[in-house]
Amino acid sequence: MSGSMYGSSVGTLVLLRHGESVWNAENLFTGWVDVPLSEKGEKEARRGGELLREAGLLPDVVHTSVLRRAIATANLALDVADRHWIPVRRDWRLNERHYGALQGKNKKQTLAEFGEDQFMQWRRSYDTPPPEIELGSEFSQDADPRYAGIDSPRTECLKDVVARMLPYWESSVVPDLRSGRTVLLAAHGNSLRALVKYLDKVSEEAIAGLNIPTGIPLRYDLSEQLEPLNPGGTYLDPEEAEKAAAAVANQGR
Amino acid sequence: MSGSMYGSSVGTLVLLRHGESVWNAENLFTGWVDVPLSEKGEKEARRGGELLREAGLLPDVVHTSVLRRAIATANLALDVADRHWIPVRRDWRLNERHYGALQGKNKKQTLAEFGEDQFMQWRRSYDTPPPEIELGSEFSQDADPRYAGIDSPRTECLKDVVARMLPYWESSVVPDLRSGRTVLLAAHGNSLRALVKYLDKVSEEAIAGLNIPTGIPLRYDLSEQLEPLNPGGTYLDPEEAEKAAAAVANQGR
Repeated sequence: MSGSMYGSSVGTLVLLRHGESVWNAENLFTGWVDVPLSEKGEKEARRGGELLREAGLLPDVVHTSVLRRAIATANLALDVADRHWIPVRRDWRLNERHYGALQGKNKKQTLAEFGEDQFMQWRRSYDTPPPEIELGSEFSQDADPRYAGIDSPRTECLKDVVARMLPYWESSVVPDLRSGRTVLLAAHGNSLRALVKYLDKVSEEAIAGLNIPTGIPLRYDLSEQLEPLNPGGTYLDPEEAEKAAAAVANQGR
Repeated sequence: MSGSMYGSSVGTLVLLRHGESVWNAENLFTGWVDVPLSEKGEKEARRGGELLREAGLLPDVVHTSVLRRAIATANLALDVADRHWIPVRRDWRLNERHYGALQGKNKKQTLAEFGEDQFMQWRRSYDTPPPEIELGSEFSQDADPRYAGIDSPRTECLKDVVARMLPYWESSVVPDLRSGRTVLLAAHGNSLRALVKYLDKVSEEAIAGLNIPTGIPLRYDLSEQLEPLNPGGTYLDPEEAEKAAAAVANQGR
Protein backbone atom coordinates (compact mmCIF):
# COMPACT_ATOMS: atom_id res chain seq x y z
CA MET A 1 0.00 0.00 0.00
CA SER A 2 1.45 3.36 -0.90
CA GLY A 3 0.66 6.44 1.10
CA SER A 4 -0.91 9.31 -0.80
CA MET A 5 -2.30 12.79 -0.31
CA TYR A 6 -5.56 11.29 -1.62
CA GLY A 7 -5.98 8.85 1.25
CA SER A 8 -5.69 5.10 1.03
CA SER A 9 -4.64 4.11 -2.47
CA VAL A 10 -3.95 0.59 -3.60
CA GLY A 11 -1.22 1.75 -5.90
CA THR A 12 0.33 4.63 -7.75
CA LEU A 13 0.49 4.78 -11.52
CA VAL A 14 2.75 7.20 -13.36
CA LEU A 15 2.21 7.75 -17.08
CA LEU A 16 5.06 9.13 -19.16
CA ARG A 17 4.69 9.92 -22.85
CA HIS A 18 7.98 9.71 -24.75
CA GLY A 19 9.72 12.90 -25.74
CA GLU A 20 10.11 14.22 -29.28
CA SER A 21 11.27 11.65 -31.84
CA VAL A 22 13.15 12.46 -35.02
CA TRP A 23 9.90 11.95 -36.93
CA ASN A 24 7.88 14.18 -34.57
CA ALA A 25 10.49 16.80 -35.41
CA GLU A 26 9.92 16.20 -39.14
CA ASN A 27 6.11 16.14 -38.68
CA LEU A 28 5.68 12.59 -40.05
CA PHE A 29 3.08 10.02 -38.99
CA THR A 30 5.10 7.45 -37.04
CA GLY A 31 2.86 4.77 -35.52
CA TRP A 32 4.80 1.52 -35.26
CA VAL A 33 7.85 2.76 -37.20
CA ASP A 34 10.68 2.48 -34.69
CA VAL A 35 12.38 5.86 -34.88
CA PRO A 36 14.74 7.18 -32.16
CA LEU A 37 14.28 10.17 -29.90
CA SER A 38 15.62 13.49 -31.12
CA GLU A 39 18.11 15.33 -28.92
CA LYS A 40 15.20 17.42 -27.67
CA GLY A 41 13.34 14.20 -26.88
CA GLU A 42 16.28 12.88 -24.86
CA LYS A 43 16.34 16.13 -22.93
CA GLU A 44 12.60 15.86 -22.26
CA ALA A 45 13.11 12.31 -20.95
CA ARG A 46 15.83 13.45 -18.54
CA ARG A 47 13.61 16.30 -17.39
CA GLY A 48 10.88 13.73 -16.73
CA GLY A 49 13.34 11.86 -14.53
CA GLU A 50 14.21 15.05 -12.66
CA LEU A 51 10.52 15.68 -11.99
CA LEU A 52 10.13 12.16 -10.59
CA ARG A 53 13.18 12.62 -8.40
CA GLU A 54 12.15 16.06 -7.15
CA ALA A 55 8.65 14.76 -6.31
CA GLY A 56 10.11 11.70 -4.57
CA LEU A 57 7.84 9.67 -6.86
CA LEU A 58 10.10 6.66 -7.33
CA PRO A 59 8.86 3.83 -9.55
CA ASP A 60 9.26 0.24 -8.33
CA VAL A 61 8.68 -1.25 -11.78
CA VAL A 62 8.52 0.10 -15.34
CA HIS A 63 6.36 -1.03 -18.25
CA THR A 64 7.20 0.11 -21.78
CA SER A 65 6.12 -0.53 -25.34
CA VAL A 66 8.57 -2.33 -27.66
CA LEU A 67 9.41 0.90 -29.51
CA ARG A 68 12.75 2.55 -28.85
CA ARG A 69 11.39 6.04 -28.28
CA ALA A 70 9.44 4.81 -25.23
CA ILE A 71 12.23 2.47 -24.13
CA ALA A 72 14.86 5.23 -24.33
CA THR A 73 12.56 7.66 -22.52
CA ALA A 74 12.19 5.18 -19.66
CA ASN A 75 15.94 4.43 -19.59
CA LEU A 76 16.92 8.11 -19.50
CA ALA A 77 14.28 9.17 -16.98
CA LEU A 78 14.97 6.25 -14.64
CA ASP A 79 18.71 6.82 -14.77
CA VAL A 80 18.25 10.46 -13.69
CA ALA A 81 15.83 9.37 -10.94
CA ASP A 82 18.38 6.74 -9.81
CA ARG A 83 15.85 3.95 -10.52
CA HIS A 84 17.58 2.40 -13.52
CA TRP A 85 17.81 -0.89 -11.60
CA ILE A 86 14.07 -1.61 -11.18
CA PRO A 87 12.34 -4.52 -12.97
CA VAL A 88 11.39 -3.88 -16.60
CA ARG A 89 8.46 -5.25 -18.57
CA ARG A 90 7.84 -4.59 -22.26
CA ASP A 91 4.87 -5.37 -24.45
CA TRP A 92 3.69 -4.44 -27.95
CA ARG A 93 0.24 -3.78 -26.48
CA LEU A 94 1.62 -0.49 -25.12
CA ASN A 95 2.74 0.57 -28.61
CA GLU A 96 1.58 3.71 -30.33
CA ARG A 97 -1.52 3.39 -32.51
CA HIS A 98 -0.69 1.72 -35.83
CA TYR A 99 -1.19 4.49 -38.37
CA GLY A 100 -1.76 2.16 -41.33
CA ALA A 101 -0.94 3.55 -44.76
CA LEU A 102 -0.23 6.96 -43.22
CA GLN A 103 2.99 5.71 -41.57
CA GLY A 104 5.93 7.64 -42.98
CA LYS A 105 3.73 10.36 -44.51
CA ASN A 106 4.08 14.06 -43.76
CA LYS A 107 1.22 15.41 -41.65
CA LYS A 108 1.04 18.75 -43.43
CA GLN A 109 1.05 17.13 -46.89
CA THR A 110 -1.59 14.62 -45.77
CA LEU A 111 -3.75 17.50 -44.53
CA ALA A 112 -3.34 19.31 -47.86
CA GLU A 113 -3.97 16.15 -49.91
CA PHE A 114 -7.03 14.82 -48.10
CA GLY A 115 -8.51 17.96 -46.56
CA GLU A 116 -9.31 18.96 -43.01
CA ASP A 117 -12.30 16.63 -42.49
CA GLN A 118 -10.62 13.40 -43.57
CA PHE A 119 -7.37 14.38 -41.82
CA MET A 120 -9.08 15.07 -38.51
CA GLN A 121 -11.16 11.91 -38.78
CA TRP A 122 -8.02 9.80 -39.14
CA ARG A 123 -6.29 11.66 -36.35
CA ARG A 124 -9.06 12.00 -33.85
CA SER A 125 -12.17 9.93 -34.59
CA TYR A 126 -12.63 7.08 -32.14
CA ASP A 127 -13.47 4.32 -34.59
CA THR A 128 -12.29 5.24 -38.10
CA PRO A 129 -8.86 3.74 -38.83
CA PRO A 130 -6.69 5.03 -41.70
CA PRO A 131 -6.36 2.73 -44.75
CA GLU A 132 -4.40 -0.47 -44.07
CA ILE A 133 -0.68 -0.49 -44.72
CA GLU A 134 0.49 -2.66 -47.61
CA LEU A 135 2.32 -5.81 -46.46
CA GLY A 136 6.01 -5.70 -47.30
CA SER A 137 5.97 -1.95 -47.87
CA GLU A 138 8.72 0.33 -46.54
CA PHE A 139 7.04 1.29 -43.27
CA SER A 140 5.26 -1.99 -42.57
CA GLN A 141 6.35 -4.19 -39.62
CA ASP A 142 5.19 -7.57 -40.93
CA ALA A 143 8.76 -8.97 -41.12
CA ASP A 144 9.85 -7.51 -37.76
CA PRO A 145 10.97 -10.31 -35.38
CA ARG A 146 9.55 -8.53 -32.33
CA TYR A 147 6.02 -9.16 -33.66
CA ALA A 148 6.61 -12.81 -34.60
CA GLY A 149 3.65 -14.89 -33.51
CA ILE A 150 1.45 -11.84 -33.04
CA ASP A 151 -1.50 -11.16 -35.28
CA SER A 152 -0.23 -7.62 -35.90
CA PRO A 153 -2.67 -4.91 -36.93
CA ARG A 154 -2.25 -3.24 -40.32
CA THR A 155 -4.01 -0.11 -39.11
CA GLU A 156 -5.74 1.00 -35.94
CA CYS A 157 -8.24 3.53 -34.65
CA LEU A 158 -8.20 4.54 -30.98
CA LYS A 159 -10.95 2.00 -30.27
CA ASP A 160 -8.61 -0.74 -31.53
CA VAL A 161 -5.86 0.53 -29.25
CA VAL A 162 -8.17 0.38 -26.23
CA ALA A 163 -9.12 -3.19 -27.18
CA ARG A 164 -5.54 -4.47 -27.47
CA MET A 165 -4.13 -2.41 -24.59
CA LEU A 166 -6.64 -3.43 -21.89
CA PRO A 167 -5.68 -7.15 -21.80
CA TYR A 168 -2.11 -6.09 -20.96
CA TRP A 169 -3.36 -3.64 -18.34
CA GLU A 170 -5.37 -6.40 -16.66
CA SER A 171 -2.79 -9.16 -16.91
CA SER A 172 0.42 -7.27 -16.17
CA VAL A 173 -0.02 -3.74 -14.85
CA VAL A 174 -2.87 -4.39 -12.40
CA PRO A 175 -0.97 -7.18 -10.56
CA ASP A 176 1.97 -4.81 -10.05
CA LEU A 177 -0.36 -2.09 -8.70
CA ARG A 178 -2.17 -4.55 -6.43
CA SER A 179 1.13 -5.63 -4.95
CA GLY A 180 1.61 -2.04 -3.81
CA ARG A 181 4.21 -1.05 -6.39
CA THR A 182 4.55 2.41 -7.89
CA VAL A 183 4.27 1.65 -11.61
CA LEU A 184 5.85 3.77 -14.34
CA LEU A 185 4.24 3.26 -17.74
CA ALA A 186 6.39 4.77 -20.51
CA ALA A 187 4.44 4.79 -23.74
CA HIS A 188 2.84 6.85 -26.49
CA GLY A 189 0.25 9.52 -27.13
CA ASN A 190 -2.47 7.10 -28.16
CA SER A 191 -1.76 4.12 -25.92
CA LEU A 192 -1.80 6.54 -22.98
CA ARG A 193 -4.99 8.24 -24.23
CA ALA A 194 -6.55 4.77 -24.45
CA LEU A 195 -5.64 4.09 -20.83
CA VAL A 196 -6.78 7.51 -19.61
CA LYS A 197 -10.09 7.02 -21.44
CA TYR A 198 -10.55 3.77 -19.54
CA LEU A 199 -9.41 5.03 -16.13
CA ASP A 200 -11.30 8.34 -16.21
CA LYS A 201 -14.30 6.94 -18.11
CA VAL A 202 -13.90 9.60 -20.80
CA SER A 203 -16.54 9.49 -23.54
CA GLU A 204 -15.69 8.65 -27.15
CA GLU A 205 -16.37 12.28 -28.05
CA ALA A 206 -14.39 13.89 -25.24
CA ILE A 207 -11.28 11.74 -25.75
CA ALA A 208 -10.79 13.41 -29.14
CA GLY A 209 -9.92 16.65 -27.36
CA LEU A 210 -7.60 15.11 -24.79
CA ASN A 211 -3.88 15.55 -25.48
CA ILE A 212 -1.14 14.19 -23.25
CA PRO A 213 2.06 16.25 -23.25
CA THR A 214 5.44 14.61 -23.73
CA GLY A 215 7.98 14.07 -20.98
CA ILE A 216 5.85 15.25 -18.04
CA PRO A 217 4.96 12.48 -15.59
CA LEU A 218 1.20 12.15 -14.95
CA ARG A 219 0.39 10.61 -11.59
CA TYR A 220 -2.75 8.61 -10.77
CA ASP A 221 -3.56 7.40 -7.28
CA LEU A 222 -5.88 4.43 -7.59
CA SER A 223 -8.48 3.09 -5.22
CA GLU A 224 -9.03 -0.55 -4.30
CA GLN A 225 -11.35 -0.69 -7.34
CA LEU A 226 -8.52 0.83 -9.41
CA GLU A 227 -10.47 4.02 -9.90
CA PRO A 228 -8.58 7.33 -9.82
CA LEU A 229 -8.72 9.08 -6.44
CA ASN A 230 -7.50 12.10 -8.42
CA PRO A 231 -9.62 11.99 -11.61
CA GLY A 232 -7.70 13.24 -14.62
CA GLY A 233 -4.45 12.58 -12.84
CA THR A 234 -1.91 15.07 -11.55
CA TYR A 235 0.93 16.36 -13.71
CA LEU A 236 4.21 16.81 -11.89
CA ASP A 237 4.67 20.10 -13.77
CA PRO A 238 1.11 21.39 -14.35
CA GLU A 239 2.04 24.70 -15.99
CA GLU A 240 4.36 23.09 -18.51
CA ALA A 241 1.76 20.36 -19.16
CA GLU A 242 -0.87 22.94 -20.10
CA LYS A 243 1.44 24.71 -22.54
CA ALA A 244 2.59 21.42 -24.10
CA ALA A 245 -0.94 20.04 -24.54
CA ALA A 246 -1.94 23.14 -26.46
CA ALA A 247 1.08 22.71 -28.76
CA VAL A 248 0.18 19.04 -29.50
CA ALA A 249 -3.37 20.07 -30.46
CA ASN A 250 -1.94 22.31 -33.17
CA GLN A 251 0.18 19.64 -34.90
CA GLY A 252 -0.21 19.52 -38.67
CA ARG A 253 -1.25 23.18 -38.83
CA MET B 1 17.26 -25.24 -29.90
CA SER B 2 19.61 -22.80 -31.55
CA GLY B 3 21.74 -23.86 -34.46
CA SER B 4 25.47 -23.55 -34.00
CA MET B 5 28.76 -24.26 -35.70
CA TYR B 6 29.46 -26.55 -32.74
CA GLY B 7 26.60 -28.92 -33.47
CA SER B 8 23.45 -29.33 -31.39
CA SER B 9 23.45 -26.80 -28.57
CA VAL B 10 20.68 -26.32 -26.07
CA GLY B 11 21.26 -22.61 -25.96
CA THR B 12 23.62 -19.78 -26.66
CA LEU B 13 25.05 -17.58 -23.94
CA VAL B 14 26.72 -14.25 -24.69
CA LEU B 15 28.78 -12.58 -21.96
CA LEU B 16 29.42 -8.85 -22.17
CA ARG B 17 31.61 -7.01 -19.68
CA HIS B 18 30.68 -3.36 -19.33
CA GLY B 19 32.88 -0.73 -20.94
CA GLU B 20 35.07 1.75 -19.11
CA SER B 21 33.40 3.55 -16.22
CA VAL B 22 34.40 6.96 -14.95
CA TRP B 23 36.14 5.23 -12.04
CA ASN B 24 37.98 2.75 -14.27
CA ALA B 25 39.27 5.85 -16.01
CA GLU B 26 40.41 7.27 -12.65
CA ASN B 27 41.86 3.90 -11.57
CA LEU B 28 39.66 3.59 -8.45
CA PHE B 29 38.30 0.39 -6.92
CA THR B 30 34.60 0.48 -7.75
CA GLY B 31 32.83 -2.71 -6.64
CA TRP B 32 29.22 -1.88 -5.79
CA VAL B 33 29.61 1.90 -6.11
CA ASP B 34 27.19 2.80 -8.92
CA VAL B 35 29.29 4.96 -11.22
CA PRO B 36 28.32 5.69 -14.84
CA LEU B 37 30.16 4.70 -18.00
CA SER B 38 32.75 7.11 -19.35
CA GLU B 39 32.34 8.32 -22.94
CA LYS B 40 34.87 5.69 -23.93
CA GLY B 41 32.77 3.10 -22.12
CA GLU B 42 29.65 4.16 -24.01
CA LYS B 43 31.56 3.81 -27.26
CA GLU B 44 32.75 0.33 -26.24
CA ALA B 45 29.15 -0.67 -25.51
CA ARG B 46 27.98 0.48 -28.94
CA ARG B 47 30.88 -1.39 -30.54
CA GLY B 48 29.74 -4.49 -28.64
CA GLY B 49 26.30 -4.03 -30.20
CA GLU B 50 27.85 -3.71 -33.67
CA LEU B 51 29.75 -6.96 -33.14
CA LEU B 52 26.51 -8.72 -32.16
CA ARG B 53 24.74 -7.32 -35.20
CA GLU B 54 27.57 -8.17 -37.62
CA ALA B 55 27.73 -11.73 -36.26
CA GLY B 56 23.95 -12.07 -36.47
CA LEU B 57 24.11 -13.10 -32.80
CA LEU B 58 20.82 -11.60 -31.67
CA PRO B 59 19.86 -11.97 -28.01
CA ASP B 60 16.31 -13.01 -27.14
CA VAL B 61 16.60 -11.93 -23.51
CA VAL B 62 19.08 -9.88 -21.47
CA HIS B 63 20.18 -10.30 -17.87
CA THR B 64 22.04 -7.48 -16.12
CA SER B 65 23.32 -6.59 -12.69
CA VAL B 66 21.63 -3.68 -10.86
CA LEU B 67 24.58 -1.36 -11.50
CA ARG B 68 24.21 1.36 -14.13
CA ARG B 69 27.47 0.61 -15.94
CA ALA B 70 26.20 -2.87 -16.87
CA ILE B 71 22.64 -1.63 -17.47
CA ALA B 72 23.81 1.17 -19.77
CA THR B 73 26.15 -1.19 -21.60
CA ALA B 74 23.22 -3.54 -22.30
CA ASN B 75 20.95 -0.65 -23.33
CA LEU B 76 23.48 0.83 -25.75
CA ALA B 77 24.59 -2.48 -27.25
CA LEU B 78 21.04 -3.75 -27.70
CA ASP B 79 19.90 -0.51 -29.29
CA VAL B 80 22.67 -0.74 -31.89
CA ALA B 81 21.84 -4.42 -32.51
CA ASP B 82 18.14 -3.48 -32.87
CA ARG B 83 17.24 -5.74 -29.92
CA HIS B 84 16.31 -2.99 -27.43
CA TRP B 85 12.80 -4.51 -27.20
CA ILE B 86 13.72 -7.93 -25.75
CA PRO B 87 12.76 -8.96 -22.20
CA VAL B 88 15.02 -7.66 -19.44
CA ARG B 89 15.93 -9.28 -16.13
CA ARG B 90 18.09 -7.66 -13.46
CA ASP B 91 19.57 -9.04 -10.29
CA TRP B 92 22.15 -7.94 -7.72
CA ARG B 93 23.67 -11.44 -7.91
CA LEU B 94 25.26 -10.38 -11.22
CA ASN B 95 26.91 -7.36 -9.54
CA GLU B 96 30.64 -6.76 -9.52
CA ARG B 97 32.54 -8.17 -6.56
CA HIS B 98 32.04 -6.03 -3.45
CA TYR B 99 35.46 -4.54 -2.83
CA GLY B 100 34.87 -3.86 0.85
CA ALA B 101 36.92 -1.07 2.42
CA LEU B 102 38.85 -0.64 -0.85
CA GLN B 103 35.78 0.84 -2.61
CA GLY B 104 36.58 4.41 -3.66
CA LYS B 105 40.34 3.96 -3.16
CA ASN B 106 42.92 4.57 -5.88
CA LYS B 107 44.50 1.36 -7.14
CA LYS B 108 47.98 2.82 -7.55
CA GLN B 109 47.94 4.39 -4.06
CA THR B 110 46.63 1.13 -2.58
CA LEU B 111 49.48 -0.72 -4.28
CA ALA B 112 52.02 1.75 -2.90
CA GLU B 113 50.47 1.72 0.59
CA PHE B 114 50.06 -2.03 1.06
CA GLY B 115 52.70 -3.45 -1.26
CA GLU B 116 52.56 -5.80 -4.19
CA ASP B 117 51.78 -8.99 -2.22
CA GLN B 118 48.81 -7.69 -0.28
CA PHE B 119 47.53 -5.77 -3.31
CA MET B 120 47.60 -8.82 -5.58
CA GLN B 121 46.06 -10.99 -2.90
CA TRP B 122 43.07 -8.66 -2.62
CA ARG B 123 42.78 -8.38 -6.37
CA ARG B 124 43.39 -11.93 -7.43
CA SER B 125 43.35 -14.48 -4.61
CA TYR B 126 40.32 -16.72 -4.74
CA ASP B 127 39.35 -16.66 -1.10
CA THR B 128 40.85 -13.62 0.63
CA PRO B 129 38.38 -10.71 0.74
CA PRO B 130 39.53 -7.14 1.42
CA PRO B 131 38.63 -5.68 4.84
CA GLU B 132 34.90 -5.07 5.33
CA ILE B 133 33.48 -1.67 4.46
CA GLU B 134 32.25 0.41 7.37
CA LEU B 135 28.44 0.67 7.54
CA GLY B 136 27.21 4.16 6.74
CA SER B 137 30.51 5.19 5.16
CA GLU B 138 30.69 7.16 1.93
CA PHE B 139 30.99 4.22 -0.45
CA SER B 140 28.83 1.74 1.45
CA GLN B 141 25.47 0.60 0.01
CA ASP B 142 23.70 -0.30 3.24
CA ALA B 143 21.05 2.42 2.82
CA ASP B 144 20.51 1.80 -0.90
CA PRO B 145 16.87 0.84 -1.62
CA ARG B 146 17.84 -1.60 -4.35
CA TYR B 147 19.35 -3.88 -1.71
CA ALA B 148 16.47 -3.63 0.77
CA GLY B 149 15.64 -7.05 2.13
CA ILE B 150 18.94 -8.49 0.95
CA ASP B 151 21.65 -9.55 3.37
CA SER B 152 24.21 -7.47 1.46
CA PRO B 153 27.88 -8.39 1.68
CA ARG B 154 30.32 -5.89 3.20
CA THR B 155 33.21 -7.35 1.25
CA GLU B 156 33.71 -10.26 -1.12
CA CYS B 157 36.40 -12.49 -2.55
CA LEU B 158 35.85 -14.24 -5.87
CA LYS B 159 34.73 -17.37 -4.03
CA ASP B 160 31.93 -15.33 -2.44
CA VAL B 161 30.91 -14.05 -5.88
CA VAL B 162 30.68 -17.61 -7.23
CA ALA B 163 28.54 -18.58 -4.24
CA ARG B 164 26.02 -15.74 -4.66
CA MET B 165 26.02 -15.75 -8.46
CA LEU B 166 25.28 -19.45 -9.03
CA PRO B 167 21.79 -19.47 -7.46
CA TYR B 168 20.77 -16.79 -9.97
CA TRP B 169 22.36 -18.73 -12.82
CA GLU B 170 20.38 -21.82 -11.87
CA SER B 171 17.06 -20.14 -11.15
CA SER B 172 16.94 -17.52 -13.92
CA VAL B 173 19.54 -17.89 -16.66
CA VAL B 174 19.36 -21.67 -17.11
CA PRO B 175 15.56 -21.68 -17.71
CA ASP B 176 16.03 -19.06 -20.45
CA LEU B 177 18.78 -21.15 -22.07
CA ARG B 178 16.73 -24.35 -21.81
CA SER B 179 13.83 -22.67 -23.58
CA GLY B 180 16.18 -22.18 -26.55
CA ARG B 181 16.77 -18.47 -26.08
CA THR B 182 20.00 -16.68 -26.91
CA VAL B 183 20.86 -15.06 -23.58
CA LEU B 184 22.90 -11.86 -23.22
CA LEU B 185 24.45 -11.45 -19.80
CA ALA B 186 25.74 -7.91 -19.29
CA ALA B 187 27.82 -7.76 -16.15
CA HIS B 188 31.22 -7.18 -14.58
CA GLY B 189 34.81 -8.42 -14.58
CA ASN B 190 34.40 -10.57 -11.50
CA SER B 191 30.81 -11.79 -11.84
CA LEU B 192 31.73 -12.94 -15.36
CA ARG B 193 34.98 -14.53 -14.16
CA ALA B 194 32.92 -16.37 -11.54
CA LEU B 195 30.62 -17.71 -14.25
CA VAL B 196 33.48 -18.63 -16.59
CA LYS B 197 35.21 -20.45 -13.73
CA TYR B 198 32.04 -22.51 -13.25
CA LEU B 199 31.32 -23.17 -16.93
CA ASP B 200 34.89 -24.00 -17.95
CA LYS B 201 35.78 -25.72 -14.66
CA VAL B 202 38.75 -23.40 -14.20
CA SER B 203 40.85 -24.12 -11.10
CA GLU B 204 41.12 -21.63 -8.21
CA GLU B 205 44.72 -20.99 -9.25
CA ALA B 206 44.12 -20.56 -12.97
CA ILE B 207 41.17 -18.17 -12.57
CA ALA B 208 43.60 -15.61 -11.09
CA GLY B 209 45.19 -15.20 -14.49
CA LEU B 210 41.95 -15.00 -16.46
CA ASN B 211 40.93 -11.49 -17.54
CA ILE B 212 37.80 -10.71 -19.51
CA PRO B 213 38.11 -7.70 -21.79
CA THR B 214 35.43 -4.99 -21.81
CA GLY B 215 32.86 -4.49 -24.54
CA ILE B 216 33.69 -7.60 -26.60
CA PRO B 217 30.89 -10.20 -26.64
CA LEU B 218 32.06 -13.69 -25.57
CA ARG B 219 29.92 -16.48 -26.98
CA TYR B 220 29.35 -19.88 -25.38
CA ASP B 221 27.42 -22.66 -27.08
CA LEU B 222 26.13 -24.98 -24.40
CA SER B 223 25.31 -28.67 -24.52
CA GLU B 224 22.22 -30.32 -23.06
CA GLN B 225 24.28 -30.65 -19.84
CA LEU B 226 25.03 -26.90 -20.12
CA GLU B 227 28.68 -27.59 -20.73
CA PRO B 228 30.53 -25.43 -23.28
CA LEU B 229 30.77 -27.00 -26.72
CA ASN B 230 33.45 -24.35 -27.28
CA PRO B 231 35.46 -24.38 -24.03
CA GLY B 232 36.74 -20.92 -23.12
CA GLY B 233 34.11 -19.36 -25.31
CA THR B 234 34.56 -17.49 -28.57
CA TYR B 235 35.18 -13.74 -28.65
CA LEU B 236 33.42 -11.94 -31.49
CA ASP B 237 36.62 -9.90 -32.01
CA PRO B 238 39.45 -12.27 -30.94
CA GLU B 239 42.37 -9.96 -31.82
CA GLU B 240 40.94 -7.02 -29.91
CA ALA B 241 40.07 -9.33 -26.98
CA GLU B 242 43.68 -10.47 -26.67
CA LYS B 243 45.02 -6.92 -26.63
CA ALA B 244 42.40 -5.79 -24.11
CA ALA B 245 42.96 -8.73 -21.73
CA ALA B 246 46.65 -7.89 -21.57
CA ALA B 247 45.81 -4.28 -20.70
CA VAL B 248 43.48 -5.34 -17.85
CA ALA B 249 46.22 -7.53 -16.35
CA ASN B 250 48.43 -4.47 -16.06
CA GLN B 251 45.95 -2.30 -14.14
CA GLY B 252 47.41 -0.58 -11.09
CA ARG B 253 50.95 -0.62 -12.53
